[in-house]
Amino acid sequence: MEELKKIITLLSQFPGIGRKTAERIAFFILKMDEGKVKELSSAIVLWRQLVKPCPLCFNITTRERCEICEDPKRERDTLCVVEDASDLYAIENTHSYKGLYFVLGGVIKDEGTKRALRLKELEERVKRDKIKEVIIATNPTTEGELTALHLAKLLKPFGVKLTRIARGIPFGAHLELADSITISQALEGRKEI
Amino acid sequence: MEELKKIITLLSQFPGIGRKTAERIAFFILKMDEGKVKELSSAIVLWRQLVKPCPLCFNITTRERCEICEDPKRERDTLCVVEDASDLYAIENTHSYKGLYFVLGGVIKDEGTKRALRLKELEERVKRDKIKEVIIATNPTTEGELTALHLAKLLKPFGVKLTRIARGIPFGAHLELADSITISQALEGRKEI
Repeated sequence: MEELKKIITLLSQFPGIGRKTAERIAFFILKMDEGKVKELSSAIVLWRQLVKPCPLCFNITTRERCEICEDPKRERDTLCVVEDASDLYAIENTHSYKGLYFVLGGVIKDEGTKRALRLKELEERVKRDKIKEVIIATNPTTEGELTALHLAKLLKPFGVKLTRIARGIPFGAHLELADSITISQALEGRKEI
Repeated sequence: MEELKKIITLLSQFPGIGRKTAERIAFFILKMDEGKVKELSSAIVLWRQLVKPCPLCFNITTRERCEICEDPKRERDTLCVVEDASDLYAIENTHSYKGLYFVLGGVIKDEGTKRALRLKELEERVKRDKIKEVIIATNPTTEGELTALHLAKLLKPFGVKLTRIARGIPFGAHLELADSITISQALEGRKEI
């Protein structure tokens, strides 16, 4: 059926949705109340239309500034630099960080991707807001590490404390299943107990 | 962020989408072209609005009758009874069945679900269209087997050949990992080679 193929193709463009899941969703929609389907569909369009980057930290927001930048309880001299807003929410969900953020907009892969990053905006932010510590929380991938090194070089002249999130064996994981880079980083980053 | 929570809740109502995948999809939508998001959203609404059950076999269709019922190349005296339209497409994808279908609309769980099934419509279909063989292809679950037995009893008076899809060890699976019911059904259904 043509229409089924079309809806499966549309749905399977999303991350984490294969053709089999897309098909299950397509049949699920047919059993949904028509009003609910309309509600969902406008929510998706509104989500795309109303959400903009916060001009201060580039987190997503529907207001003038994001709720983290607006929150008077956050420590304003600590800045955590992440690749994307989704990384910011991963950190927020831990409830263990009380400073502010800066969303870089990706990682350095080449000169083109480097130009697309908010490097100028980050420098200005650090200077203007008298930031004392910058936590570099790009992902521990090859490109994330390269970007972290570049940021460290870039921010050194501002005399801020520069830190990098710890690498090691993830909680609940087993040594025998971890790759050798992770194991050597866990050894390197060992702490006295 | 309230809007993020809302969109995650909406998306994670779908089968196969957990909160983590819903979040990834939410961020993916923000990076999509606005026109593409609108296109997707109307495609979902149209899919729900235009797709109706075929009056003959209750497969999904946007036309008066579904394309399988309309296809002159299908064998018109063989009927394969499935629980849902999604099962019908699972069979169609094998390209190994050339007869027609009948979508029952579920399985018997109790008197209520039994009343909701298209049992009358199935009887009429078998009688009116001079069906010679009915393949009962409900799922090999407890309820699917119960429903299959009920259908067999119901259709016996019409003098049609009644068959049930084979149960056994699935292709690519291992005996040591199969459950004992499956293994005994595979032994019971053994064929000479």
